[in-house]
Amino acid sequence: MTSSNPTNAFAPLQNDTFLRACLRQATDHTPVWLMRQAGRYLPEYCATRAKAGSFMGLATNTDFATEVTLQPLERYELDAAILFSDILTVPDAMGLGLSFAQGEGPRFASPVRDETAVAQLAVPDMDKLRYVFDAVTSIRRALQGRVPLIGFSGSPWTLACYMVEGKGSDDYRLVKTMLYARPDLMHRMLAVNADAVASYLNAQIDAGAQAVMIFDSWGGVLADGAFQTFSMAYTARVLAQLKRVGTDGQVVPRIVFTKGGGGWLTDMASLDCEVLGLDWTVNLAAARTLVGGADNGPGKALQGNIDPNVLFAQPEQIAAEVGKVIDSFGKPYGGSGTGPTHIFNLGHGISQYTPPENVSALVNAVHQHSKRVRM
Amino acid sequence: MTSSNPTNAFAPLQNDTFLRACLRQATDHTPVWLMRQAGRYLPEYCATRAKAGSFMGLATNTDFATEVTLQPLERYELDAAILFSDILTVPDAMGLGLSFAQGEGPRFASPVRDETAVAQLAVPDMDKLRYVFDAVTSIRRALQGRVPLIGFSGSPWTLACYMVEGKGSDDYRLVKTMLYARPDLMHRMLAVNADAVASYLNAQIDAGAQAVMIFDSWGGVLADGAFQTFSMAYTARVLAQLKRVGTDGQVVPRIVFTKGGGGWLTDMASLDCEVLGLDWTVNLAAARTLVGGADNGPGKALQGNIDPNVLFAQPEQIAAEVGKVIDSFGKPYGGSGTGPTHIFNLGHGISQYTPPENVSALVNAVHQHSKRVRM
Repeated sequence: MTSSNPTNAFAPLQNDTFLRACLRQATDHTPVWLMRQAGRYLPEYCATRAKAGSFMGLATNTDFATEVTLQPLERYELDAAILFSDILTVPDAMGLGLSFAQGEGPRFASPVRDETAVAQLAVPDMDKLRYVFDAVTSIRRALQGRVPLIGFSGSPWTLACYMVEGKGSDDYRLVKTMLYARPDLMHRMLAVNADAVASYLNAQIDAGAQAVMIFDSWGGVLADGAFQTFSMAYTARVLAQLKRVGTDGQVVPRIVFTKGGGGWLTDMASLDCEVLGLDWTVNLAAARTLVGGADNGPGKALQGNIDPNVLFAQPEQIAAEVGKVIDSFGKPYGGSGTGPTHIFNLGHGISQYTPPENVSALVNAVHQHSKRVRM
Repeated sequence: MTSSNPTNAFAPLQNDTFLRACLRQATDHTPVWLMRQAGRYLPEYCATRAKAGSFMGLATNTDFATEVTLQPLERYELDAAILFSDILTVPDAMGLGLSFAQGEGPRFASPVRDETAVAQLAVPDMDKLRYVFDAVTSIRRALQGRVPLIGFSGSPWTLACYMVEGKGSDDYRLVKTMLYARPDLMHRMLAVNADAVASYLNAQIDAGAQAVMIFDSWGGVLADGAFQTFSMAYTARVLAQLKRVGTDGQVVPRIVFTKGGGGWLTDMASLDCEVLGLDWTVNLAAARTLVGGADNGPGKALQGNIDPNVLFAQPEQIAAEVGKVIDSFGKPYGGSGTGPTHIFNLGHGISQYTPPENVSALVNAVHQHSKRVRM
């Protein structure tokens, strides 16, 4: 295994609960982290962002990215950290010109909408994404082994949605028009995206990422059949190229999360990854039966899936909802070496309006309730 | 059976393909209609709307509502008409003040966000919705028995989403905060909504509607567990109150469509309705196996589910996608009296940007391909 970082540069891991659960190994509690845990609901995040001047100013500055990644760990007993970045860094490096207008979502200056634009697409020079890899290494050092660090990317299809639409969309009309009317162009774009995402995630692994997650945020807008062809097949193409071992010599678990993909779990069981993310519409017991596997047999660890809007209720109500999710999954594994496991998370990113103290209620409830379930 | 309309006021039905398919009876082709088939993609609709001055001006004028309901039938060989109206007429009649700002979605002047506002909610006087029932009768007369007329309403949960949020939402934060923090208020609102929707649909049946559809457009944003408790249970409360026979003495089929509800089909199999609508994420073969029933046994007819963005492809590509959907369902029933049936539709309302000629390609492909499948 080659790496630009010496293996002994990072402190040994103190809390391996998350990584063990990813690999369907026994843990004394259900690990928990939250999508977008470093974000606008935290006043300290807003302060750092104000210093940085803009979202991309924050993401491209190693010190700022490190600072905000660690902020939620100071407040909450989270079992993993996730790189602070954006899913659209890769198409930005392709030259599409990413920007975040005040109060709006991301926007590309040069969307990809015709044959000429598609023909010009290529896997970008990874040096253009050096700021991401530097952030990964910086965060690993700053973590001092407290919890593992997750790297991530958007899925090839999700990147294509933004690349064609140029911004968020209600109906995905432009990208789906290309899909149905010019599937040849769509396949070419997705192939480039998949190879770019694979290089990007491998460079994150080389920089110190201990797990990687592919966010297929818009896979769920596709029709049955189209999902398998235009999203899942290219996620599989990414997975096939990923490094299996990180800078520490440890296995790097791979997580795939298709929002709205609950109906395709049996398809996704064939993906060469360790963990499947689930949104809140999915019944965890049913998902465990479908893809969670048996004790000592193969299967996927499951990650999710509480509705982030639960965090607007009172602490005792939050604890009750946490209990429902944990009970729905049921007791993990069966005392043997490996078996079905659950990683607690939201079914979507945390809302910027979340009261920070309610996140404490959620994290504490996960730890307490999941220990009781194991007794 | 009592009715304000004499049974003999309406011409006998010439094309009963849609109603037969709803009741899982044999038909010589798969019937087709399109959600929002009377809409902005048709230039003649835009001309009528311009005369009416506004969306509600169109919906509240019997002549205009009749005119636009029949427009798509002049262009396409559709097997059903659907009342031109809006899902939010009921909360408007409750006094919430519905308006449609130019280029934006619906908006309520008085959203329902606290205990006092919820306490004041009541089933509205159906006389305030007389314009809807008058439109139903007028359309029935204008149809002269060509095809059956479908009446509709939003589901109790979907109405609640708009009533609390006051407009469309990305995250349903306000309505879900009420759901999780004050479930007592949410249950009261949903009970009022259910009883109002039942009265509303019964009055449409009395006015001449030959089938009714409940649009649970936002059921799919709920978490597993919450969907069953806060959406499906109140849809069931509506269904339990609906008249079973219309002004013609014929059974009135009831259709329930939960967008994003594909994961809950086995739950929805217990609903006392004849038809389940499906969005495009659902595999029709799998849905048929789960809830379509066997020959001569009970089961649901299935309605759906092509992605409306297919209509932006070329005619031959549209025909190919239509073929995939019909083949996915497979040959309906088995030659016996009743069995699994399919009603072709979109998985969501047709886009305003749809080229009208492409709708011809779709409708014709449904008729042709579905006849071939039956050979």
